[in-house]
Amino acid sequence: MARTRFLQGLDELRARLLRMGGLAEQAVDRACQAYIERDLARCRMVLDGETQINLTEREIDELAFDLLAMQQPMAVDLRFILAVTKINADLERVGDQAVNIAERVMDMVDLPKADLPVDIPRMAAAVSAMVRRALESFIEGKAELAQAVLEMDNVVDRMKDEAFIVLVKSMNEHPDTTRQALDALLVARNLERVADHATNIAEDVIFWVRGADVRHNVTPEQPEHQEVTDTH
Amino acid sequence: MARTRFLQGLDELRARLLRMGGLAEQAVDRACQAYIERDLARCRMVLDGETQINLTEREIDELAFDLLAMQQPMAVDLRFILAVTKINADLERVGDQAVNIAERVMDMVDLPKADLPVDIPRMAAAVSAMVRRALESFIEGKAELAQAVLEMDNVVDRMKDEAFIVLVKSMNEHPDTTRQALDALLVARNLERVADHATNIAEDVIFWVRGADVRHNVTPEQPEHQEVTDTH
Repeated sequence: MARTRFLQGLDELRARLLRMGGLAEQAVDRACQAYIERDLARCRMVLDGETQINLTEREIDELAFDLLAMQQPMAVDLRFILAVTKINADLERVGDQAVNIAERVMDMVDLPKADLPVDIPRMAAAVSAMVRRALESFIEGKAELAQAVLEMDNVVDRMKDEAFIVLVKSMNEHPDTTRQALDALLVARNLERVADHATNIAEDVIFWVRGADVRHNVTPEQPEHQEVTDTH
Repeated sequence: MARTRFLQGLDELRARLLRMGGLAEQAVDRACQAYIERDLARCRMVLDGETQINLTEREIDELAFDLLAMQQPMAVDLRFILAVTKINADLERVGDQAVNIAERVMDMVDLPKADLPVDIPRMAAAVSAMVRRALESFIEGKAELAQAVLEMDNVVDRMKDEAFIVLVKSMNEHPDTTRQALDALLVARNLERVADHATNIAEDVIFWVRGADVRHNVTPEQPEHQEVTDTH
Protein backbone atom coordinates (compact mmCIF):
# COMPACT_ATOMS: atom_id res chain seq x y z
CA MET A 1 0.00 0.00 0.00
CA ALA A 2 2.61 2.51 1.10
CA ARG A 3 4.82 1.04 -1.60
CA THR A 4 2.18 1.72 -4.28
CA ARG A 5 1.88 5.31 -3.17
CA PHE A 6 5.66 5.56 -3.27
CA LEU A 7 5.81 4.20 -6.82
CA GLN A 8 3.09 6.61 -7.92
CA GLY A 9 5.21 9.36 -6.38
CA LEU A 10 8.19 8.25 -8.46
CA ASP A 11 6.08 8.41 -11.64
CA GLU A 12 4.90 11.87 -10.73
CA LEU A 13 8.51 12.89 -10.07
CA ARG A 14 9.52 11.66 -13.51
CA ALA A 15 6.59 13.47 -15.17
CA ARG A 16 7.45 16.74 -13.43
CA LEU A 17 11.09 16.51 -14.39
CA LEU A 18 10.06 16.05 -18.01
CA ARG A 19 7.91 19.16 -17.81
CA MET A 20 10.88 20.98 -16.33
CA GLY A 21 13.04 19.70 -19.19
CA GLY A 22 10.49 20.94 -21.72
CA LEU A 23 10.49 24.40 -20.16
CA ALA A 24 14.28 24.62 -20.14
CA GLU A 25 14.59 23.40 -23.73
CA GLN A 26 11.93 25.86 -24.87
CA ALA A 27 13.75 28.72 -23.13
CA VAL A 28 17.02 27.95 -24.94
CA ASP A 29 15.29 27.57 -28.31
CA ARG A 30 13.43 30.84 -27.84
CA ALA A 31 16.61 32.67 -26.82
CA CYS A 32 18.42 31.37 -29.90
CA GLN A 33 15.54 32.30 -32.21
CA ALA A 34 15.57 35.72 -30.59
CA TYR A 35 19.29 35.99 -31.46
CA ILE A 36 18.72 34.95 -35.07
CA GLU A 37 15.73 37.25 -35.64
CA ARG A 38 16.80 40.08 -33.30
CA ASP A 39 13.41 39.61 -31.70
CA LEU A 40 12.78 41.48 -28.45
CA ALA A 41 9.36 39.88 -27.92
CA ARG A 42 10.97 36.44 -27.70
CA CYS A 43 13.60 37.80 -25.29
CA ARG A 44 10.84 38.94 -22.98
CA MET A 45 9.14 35.54 -23.19
CA VAL A 46 12.39 33.95 -21.99
CA LEU A 47 12.68 36.44 -19.13
CA ASP A 48 9.04 35.91 -18.13
CA GLY A 49 9.37 32.13 -18.36
CA GLU A 50 12.05 32.04 -15.68
CA THR A 51 9.50 32.30 -12.87
CA GLN A 52 7.74 29.12 -14.01
CA ILE A 53 11.06 27.28 -14.29
CA ASN A 54 12.06 28.30 -10.78
CA LEU A 55 8.69 27.28 -9.38
CA THR A 56 8.83 23.90 -11.08
CA GLU A 57 12.36 23.31 -9.78
CA ARG A 58 11.14 23.88 -6.26
CA GLU A 59 8.12 21.60 -6.62
CA ILE A 60 10.33 18.80 -7.89
CA ASP A 61 12.75 19.16 -4.99
CA GLU A 62 9.89 19.11 -2.53
CA LEU A 63 8.42 15.95 -4.03
CA ALA A 64 11.85 14.29 -4.00
CA PHE A 65 12.21 15.25 -0.36
CA ASP A 66 8.77 13.83 0.50
CA LEU A 67 9.55 10.57 -1.27
CA LEU A 68 12.84 10.16 0.58
CA ALA A 69 11.06 10.84 3.86
CA MET A 70 8.18 8.50 3.02
CA GLN A 71 10.01 5.20 3.20
CA GLN A 72 13.48 3.76 3.14
CA PRO A 73 14.05 3.60 -0.60
CA MET A 74 15.76 0.71 -2.33
CA ALA A 75 19.16 1.50 -3.81
CA VAL A 76 17.86 1.84 -7.35
CA ASP A 77 15.02 4.18 -6.31
CA LEU A 78 17.42 6.18 -4.19
CA ARG A 79 19.74 6.60 -7.16
CA PHE A 80 16.78 7.66 -9.28
CA ILE A 81 15.61 10.28 -6.79
CA LEU A 82 19.10 11.69 -6.30
CA ALA A 83 19.62 11.78 -10.08
CA VAL A 84 16.34 13.69 -10.43
CA THR A 85 17.38 16.34 -7.89
CA LYS A 86 20.68 16.83 -9.69
CA ILE A 87 19.13 16.92 -13.17
CA ASN A 88 16.57 19.35 -11.80
CA ALA A 89 19.30 21.76 -10.66
CA ASP A 90 21.00 21.53 -14.05
CA LEU A 91 17.77 22.23 -15.91
CA GLU A 92 17.18 25.31 -13.79
CA ARG A 93 20.64 26.52 -14.75
CA VAL A 94 19.92 25.84 -18.41
CA GLY A 95 17.02 28.24 -17.92
CA ASP A 96 19.43 30.78 -16.39
CA GLN A 97 21.68 30.52 -19.44
CA ALA A 98 18.69 31.13 -21.72
CA VAL A 99 18.03 34.30 -19.71
CA ASN A 100 21.68 35.34 -20.10
CA ILE A 101 21.44 34.84 -23.87
CA ALA A 102 18.21 36.83 -24.03
CA GLU A 103 19.89 39.68 -22.13
CA ARG A 104 22.80 39.72 -24.59
CA VAL A 105 20.36 39.76 -27.51
CA MET A 106 18.56 42.73 -25.94
CA ASP A 107 21.93 44.51 -25.78
CA MET A 108 22.69 43.64 -29.43
CA VAL A 109 19.33 44.81 -30.75
CA ASP A 110 20.10 48.27 -29.38
CA LEU A 111 23.28 48.42 -31.50
CA PRO A 112 23.70 48.62 -35.28
CA LYS A 113 23.53 45.16 -36.87
CA ALA A 114 27.04 43.79 -37.41
CA ASP A 115 28.09 41.07 -39.80
CA LEU A 116 29.99 38.73 -37.49
CA PRO A 117 32.08 35.75 -38.59
CA VAL A 118 30.38 33.28 -36.27
CA ASP A 119 27.70 30.65 -36.82
CA ILE A 120 25.66 30.90 -33.63
CA PRO A 121 22.62 29.10 -35.13
CA ARG A 122 24.78 26.03 -35.86
CA MET A 123 26.13 26.02 -32.33
CA ALA A 124 22.62 26.52 -30.94
CA ALA A 125 21.33 23.56 -32.95
CA ALA A 126 24.08 21.31 -31.59
CA VAL A 127 23.45 22.42 -28.03
CA SER A 128 19.66 21.98 -28.32
CA ALA A 129 20.20 18.49 -29.65
CA MET A 130 22.37 17.71 -26.61
CA VAL A 131 19.70 18.84 -24.17
CA ARG A 132 17.01 16.91 -26.06
CA ARG A 133 19.06 13.71 -26.16
CA ALA A 134 20.03 14.00 -22.52
CA LEU A 135 16.33 14.15 -21.67
CA GLU A 136 15.55 11.26 -24.02
CA SER A 137 18.22 9.17 -22.34
CA PHE A 138 16.50 9.94 -19.06
CA ILE A 139 12.99 9.08 -20.34
CA GLU A 140 14.16 5.81 -21.82
CA GLY A 141 16.67 5.06 -19.10
CA LYS A 142 19.29 4.38 -21.76
CA ALA A 143 22.91 4.83 -20.82
CA GLU A 144 24.07 4.54 -24.47
CA LEU A 145 22.07 7.62 -25.44
CA ALA A 146 23.56 9.47 -22.50
CA GLN A 147 27.03 8.37 -23.58
CA ALA A 148 26.44 9.95 -27.01
CA VAL A 149 25.72 13.27 -25.28
CA LEU A 150 29.10 13.16 -23.55
CA GLU A 151 30.77 12.83 -26.93
CA MET A 152 28.84 15.74 -28.43
CA ASP A 153 30.20 17.99 -25.70
CA ASN A 154 33.67 17.99 -27.26
CA VAL A 155 32.23 19.20 -30.57
CA VAL A 156 30.49 22.11 -28.87
CA ASP A 157 33.66 22.99 -26.94
CA ARG A 158 35.54 23.20 -30.24
CA MET A 159 32.83 25.42 -31.74
CA LYS A 160 33.13 27.76 -28.78
CA ASP A 161 36.92 27.91 -29.07
CA GLU A 162 36.62 28.70 -32.79
CA ALA A 163 34.04 31.39 -32.09
CA PHE A 164 36.37 32.88 -29.50
CA ILE A 165 39.27 33.10 -31.97
CA VAL A 166 37.34 34.60 -34.89
CA LEU A 167 35.46 37.06 -32.71
CA VAL A 168 38.60 38.37 -30.99
CA LYS A 169 40.11 38.82 -34.45
CA SER A 170 36.98 40.67 -35.55
CA MET A 171 37.22 42.95 -32.48
CA ASN A 172 40.77 43.86 -33.44
CA GLU A 173 39.96 44.53 -37.08
CA HIS A 174 36.62 46.29 -36.59
CA PRO A 175 36.71 48.17 -33.29
CA ASP A 176 33.42 49.86 -34.22
CA THR A 177 31.57 46.55 -33.70
CA THR A 178 33.51 45.36 -30.65
CA ARG A 179 30.45 45.34 -28.49
CA GLN A 180 28.38 43.29 -30.94
CA ALA A 181 31.26 40.81 -31.25
CA LEU A 182 31.50 40.63 -27.48
CA ASP A 183 27.77 39.95 -27.20
CA ALA A 184 28.09 37.12 -29.72
CA LEU A 185 31.09 35.74 -27.87
CA LEU A 186 29.17 35.71 -24.61
CA VAL A 187 26.21 34.01 -26.31
CA ALA A 188 28.63 31.33 -27.54
CA ARG A 189 29.88 30.93 -23.97
CA ASN A 190 26.37 30.64 -22.62
CA LEU A 191 25.59 27.97 -25.20
CA GLU A 192 28.71 26.09 -24.19
CA ARG A 193 27.47 26.18 -20.60
CA VAL A 194 24.12 24.76 -21.65
CA ALA A 195 26.09 21.95 -23.28
CA ASP A 196 27.94 21.44 -19.99
CA HIS A 197 24.63 21.09 -18.17
CA ALA A 198 23.40 18.59 -20.77
CA THR A 199 26.61 16.68 -20.09
CA ASN A 200 25.95 16.74 -16.35
CA ILE A 201 22.44 15.43 -16.98
CA ALA A 202 23.77 12.62 -19.17
CA GLU A 203 26.24 11.68 -16.42
CA ASP A 204 23.43 11.58 -13.87
CA VAL A 205 21.39 9.33 -16.15
CA ILE A 206 24.34 6.94 -16.42
CA PHE A 207 24.75 7.03 -12.64
CA TRP A 208 21.10 6.13 -12.22
CA VAL A 209 20.96 3.44 -14.92
CA ARG A 210 24.32 1.79 -14.42
CA GLY A 211 24.90 2.59 -10.81
CA ALA A 212 28.30 3.89 -11.78
CA ASP A 213 29.80 7.32 -11.47
CA VAL A 214 31.16 8.50 -14.82
CA ARG A 215 31.87 12.00 -13.66
CA HIS A 216 35.43 13.18 -13.96
CA ASN A 217 36.45 9.99 -15.81
CA VAL A 218 36.31 7.89 -12.69
CA THR A 219 36.36 4.17 -13.51
CA PRO A 220 32.77 2.96 -13.78
CA GLU A 221 31.00 -0.30 -13.05
CA GLN A 222 31.56 -1.12 -9.44
CA PRO A 223 30.48 -4.74 -8.98
CA GLU A 224 28.13 -4.25 -6.03
CA HIS A 225 26.26 -1.56 -7.93
CA GLN A 226 26.13 -3.65 -11.08
CA GLU A 227 23.99 -6.19 -9.28
CA VAL A 228 21.40 -3.59 -8.43
CA THR A 229 21.24 -2.61 -12.08
CA ASP A 230 20.58 -6.17 -13.14
CA THR A 231 17.53 -6.39 -10.95
CA HIS A 232 16.20 -3.15 -12.35
CA MET B 1 23.50 1.44 17.65
CA ALA B 2 22.61 1.90 13.97
CA ARG B 3 21.61 5.44 14.94
CA THR B 4 25.04 6.10 16.46
CA ARG B 5 26.72 4.89 13.30
CA PHE B 6 24.38 7.10 11.29
CA LEU B 7 25.23 10.15 13.40
CA GLN B 8 28.93 9.42 13.03
CA GLY B 9 28.33 9.27 9.30
CA LEU B 10 26.70 12.71 9.38
CA ASP B 11 29.74 14.11 11.22
CA GLU B 12 32.04 12.58 8.65
CA LEU B 13 29.90 14.05 5.86
CA ARG B 14 30.18 17.49 7.42
CA ALA B 15 33.96 17.14 7.83
CA ARG B 16 34.40 16.07 4.21
CA LEU B 17 32.29 18.93 2.92
CA LEU B 18 34.47 21.35 4.86
CA ARG B 19 37.58 19.85 3.28
CA MET B 20 35.90 20.25 -0.09
CA GLY B 21 35.11 23.87 0.75
CA GLY B 22 38.74 24.47 1.73
CA LEU B 23 39.94 23.06 -1.59
CA ALA B 24 37.51 25.18 -3.62
CA GLU B 25 38.37 28.34 -1.70
CA GLN B 26 42.08 27.70 -2.10
CA ALA B 27 41.63 27.20 -5.86
CA VAL B 28 39.89 30.56 -6.26
CA ASP B 29 42.46 32.36 -4.12
CA ARG B 30 45.32 30.81 -6.07
CA ALA B 31 43.75 31.70 -9.41
CA CYS B 32 43.29 35.31 -8.29
CA GLN B 33 46.86 35.54 -6.99
CA ALA B 34 47.97 34.10 -10.32
CA TYR B 35 46.09 36.92 -12.07
CA ILE B 36 47.61 39.62 -9.86
CA GLU B 37 51.19 38.31 -10.15
CA ARG B 38 50.93 36.86 -13.69
CA ASP B 39 52.17 33.65 -12.14
CA LEU B 40 52.06 30.55 -14.35
CA ALA B 41 53.19 28.24 -11.53
CA ARG B 42 50.06 29.10 -9.53
CA CYS B 43 47.92 28.55 -12.63
CA ARG B 44 49.28 25.05 -12.91
CA MET B 45 48.59 24.40 -9.23
CA VAL B 46 44.94 25.30 -9.85
CA LEU B 47 44.77 23.01 -12.88
CA ASP B 48 46.41 20.15 -10.99
CA GLY B 49 44.18 20.67 -7.95
CA GLU B 50 41.03 19.97 -9.97
CA THR B 51 41.53 16.19 -9.76
CA GLN B 52 41.47 16.28 -5.97
CA ILE B 53 38.34 18.44 -5.97
CA ASN B 54 36.55 16.08 -8.34
CA LEU B 55 37.55 13.06 -6.29
CA THR B 56 36.38 14.67 -3.06
CA GLU B 57 33.05 15.59 -4.66
CA ARG B 58 32.49 11.97 -5.59
CA GLU B 59 33.39 10.66 -2.14
CA ILE B 60 30.94 13.06 -0.52
CA ASP B 61 28.13 12.02 -2.84
CA GLU B 62 28.83 8.36 -2.13
CA LEU B 63 28.76 8.90 1.61
CA ALA B 64 25.50 10.87 1.30
CA PHE B 65 24.05 8.02 -0.72
CA ASP B 66 25.14 5.44 1.86
CA LEU B 67 23.63 7.45 4.69
CA LEU B 68 20.30 7.79 2.91
CA ALA B 69 20.30 4.05 2.23
CA MET B 70 21.30 3.20 5.80
CA GLN B 71 18.13 4.21 7.57
CA GLN B 72 15.03 6.27 7.11
CA PRO B 73 16.35 9.66 8.08
CA MET B 74 14.43 12.18 10.14
CA ALA B 75 13.33 15.29 8.27
CA VAL B 76 16.10 17.46 9.67
CA ASP B 77 18.80 14.91 8.79
CA LEU B 78 17.31 14.44 5.36
CA ARG B 79 17.42 18.18 4.76
CA PHE B 80 21.01 18.25 5.96
CA ILE B 81 22.08 15.44 3.63
CA LEU B 82 20.31 16.95 0.63
CA ALA B 83 21.83 20.35 1.42
CA VAL B 84 25.28 18.73 1.53
CA THR B 85 24.86 17.14 -1.91
CA LYS B 86 23.80 20.47 -3.36
CA ILE B 87 26.56 22.45 -1.66
CA ASN B 88 28.98 19.78 -2.83
CA ALA B 89 27.97 20.31 -6.47
CA ASP B 90 28.34 24.08 -6.10
CA LEU B 91 31.79 23.75 -4.57
CA GLU B 92 32.90 21.57 -7.45
CA ARG B 93 31.73 24.27 -9.84
CA VAL B 94 33.60 26.90 -7.85
CA GLY B 95 36.66 24.76 -8.57
CA ASP B 96 35.75 24.78 -12.29
CA GLN B 97 35.57 28.56 -12.24
CA ALA B 98 39.01 28.73 -10.65
CA VAL B 99 40.28 26.59 -13.54
CA ASN B 100 38.62 28.94 -16.04
CA ILE B 101 40.31 31.91 -14.39
CA ALA B 102 43.68 30.15 -14.43
CA GLU B 103 43.24 29.45 -18.16
CA ARG B 104 42.50 33.11 -18.86
CA VAL B 105 45.57 34.13 -16.85
CA MET B 106 47.69 31.71 -18.90
CA ASP B 107 46.39 33.42 -22.04
CA MET B 108 47.14 36.87 -20.61
CA VAL B 109 50.68 36.03 -19.56
CA ASP B 110 51.46 35.21 -23.20
CA LEU B 111 50.45 38.74 -24.22
CA PRO B 112 52.11 42.09 -23.46
CA LYS B 113 51.03 43.43 -20.07
CA ALA B 114 48.19 45.92 -20.47
CA ASP B 115 47.10 48.57 -18.03
CA LEU B 116 43.41 47.84 -17.70
CA PRO B 117 40.86 50.04 -15.92
CA VAL B 118 39.49 47.26 -13.74
CA ASP B 119 40.03 46.30 -10.12
CA ILE B 120 39.99 42.49 -10.30
CA PRO B 121 41.73 42.08 -6.91
CA ARG B 122 38.93 44.01 -5.20
CA MET B 123 36.31 41.88 -6.88
CA ALA B 124 38.26 38.72 -6.02
CA ALA B 125 38.43 39.76 -2.35
CA ALA B 126 34.66 40.28 -2.23
CA VAL B 127 33.98 36.94 -3.89
CA SER B 128 36.40 35.05 -1.62
CA ALA B 129 34.71 36.59 1.38
CA MET B 130 31.35 35.34 0.11
CA VAL B 131 32.59 31.76 -0.27
CA ARG B 132 34.22 31.89 3.17
CA ARG B 133 31.09 33.24 4.84
CA ALA B 134 28.83 30.78 3.07
CA LEU B 135 30.98 27.97 4.47
CA GLU B 136 31.02 29.58 7.93
CA SER B 137 27.23 29.78 7.87
CA PHE B 138 27.23 26.07 7.10
CA ILE B 139 29.71 25.18 9.88
CA GLU B 140 27.80 27.19 12.45
CA GLY B 141 24.37 26.39 11.04
CA LYS B 142 23.53 30.09 11.13
CA ALA B 143 20.91 31.33 8.73
CA GLU B 144 21.73 35.01 9.51
CA LEU B 145 25.28 34.56 8.23
CA ALA B 146 23.91 32.92 5.10
CA GLN B 147 21.51 35.81 4.66
CA ALA B 148 24.44 38.24 4.65
CA VAL B 149 25.96 36.31 1.76
CA LEU B 150 22.80 36.81 -0.30
CA GLU B 151 23.15 40.54 0.17
CA MET B 152 26.81 40.58 -0.86
CA ASP B 153 25.84 39.02 -4.18
CA ASN B 154 24.29 42.28 -5.37
CA VAL B 155 27.53 44.13 -4.71
CA VAL B 156 29.51 41.64 -6.78
CA ASP B 157 26.96 41.83 -9.61
CA ARG B 158 27.42 45.59 -9.70
CA MET B 159 31.21 45.21 -9.78
CA LYS B 160 30.89 42.85 -12.74
CA ASP B 161 28.58 45.24 -14.61
CA GLU B 162 31.03 48.10 -14.01
CA ALA B 163 33.93 45.94 -15.19
CA PHE B 164 31.96 45.10 -18.31
CA ILE B 165 31.35 48.75 -19.16
CA VAL B 166 34.90 50.02 -18.62
CA LEU B 167 36.48 47.05 -20.38
CA VAL B 168 34.30 47.38 -23.48
CA LYS B 169 35.23 51.06 -23.55
CA SER B 170 38.89 50.12 -23.24
CA MET B 171 38.53 47.66 -26.15
CA ASN B 172 37.14 50.43 -28.33
CA GLU B 173 39.81 52.94 -27.42
CA HIS B 174 42.79 50.56 -27.40
CA PRO B 175 42.19 47.83 -29.96
CA ASP B 176 45.79 46.66 -29.49
CA THR B 177 44.92 45.33 -26.04
CA THR B 178 41.46 43.95 -26.88
CA ARG B 179 42.46 40.44 -26.01
CA GLN B 180 43.87 41.37 -22.63
CA ALA B 181 40.71 43.34 -21.87
CA LEU B 182 38.60 40.38 -22.94
CA ASP B 183 40.58 38.06 -20.67
CA ALA B 184 40.00 40.42 -17.76
CA LEU B 185 36.31 40.64 -18.61
CA LEU B 186 36.00 36.87 -18.60
CA VAL B 187 37.84 36.67 -15.28
CA ALA B 188 35.30 39.14 -13.88
CA ARG B 189 32.49 36.93 -15.20
CA ASN B 190 34.03 33.84 -13.66
CA LEU B 191 34.30 35.63 -10.33
CA GLU B 192 30.66 36.64 -10.59
CA ARG B 193 29.80 32.96 -11.12
CA VAL B 194 31.77 32.01 -8.02
CA ALA B 195 29.65 34.55 -6.17
CA ASP B 196 26.52 32.90 -7.62
CA HIS B 197 27.67 29.54 -6.27
CA ALA B 198 28.34 31.09 -2.86
CA THR B 199 24.78 32.43 -3.02
CA ASN B 200 23.43 28.95 -3.85
CA ILE B 201 25.36 27.55 -0.89
CA ALA B 202 23.94 30.18 1.42
CA GLU B 203 20.43 29.34 0.20
CA ASP B 204 21.02 25.67 0.88
CA VAL B 205 22.21 26.47 4.40
CA ILE B 206 19.03 28.45 5.01
CA PHE B 207 16.95 25.55 3.63
CA TRP B 208 18.70 23.18 6.00
CA VAL B 209 18.59 25.42 9.09
CA ARG B 210 15.16 26.95 8.70
CA GLY B 211 13.47 24.27 6.66
CA ALA B 212 12.41 26.95 4.25
CA ASP B 213 13.20 27.42 0.61
CA VAL B 214 14.57 30.91 -0.03
CA ARG B 215 15.49 30.22 -3.60
CA HIS B 216 13.85 32.43 -6.17
CA ASN B 217 12.29 34.63 -3.48
CA VAL B 218 9.78 32.02 -2.45
CA THR B 219 8.10 32.90 0.86
CA PRO B 220 10.04 31.21 3.67
CA GLU B 221 9.13 29.85 7.10
CA GLN B 222 6.58 27.12 6.62
CA PRO B 223 5.20 26.36 10.08
CA GLU B 224 5.58 22.57 10.06
CA HIS B 225 9.23 22.89 9.11
CA GLN B 226 9.85 25.53 11.72
CA GLU B 227 9.09 22.96 14.41
CA VAL B 228 11.75 20.65 13.14
CA THR B 229 14.28 23.43 13.40
CA ASP B 230 13.41 24.08 17.00
CA THR B 231 14.20 20.51 17.98
CA HIS B 232 17.50 20.64 16.16
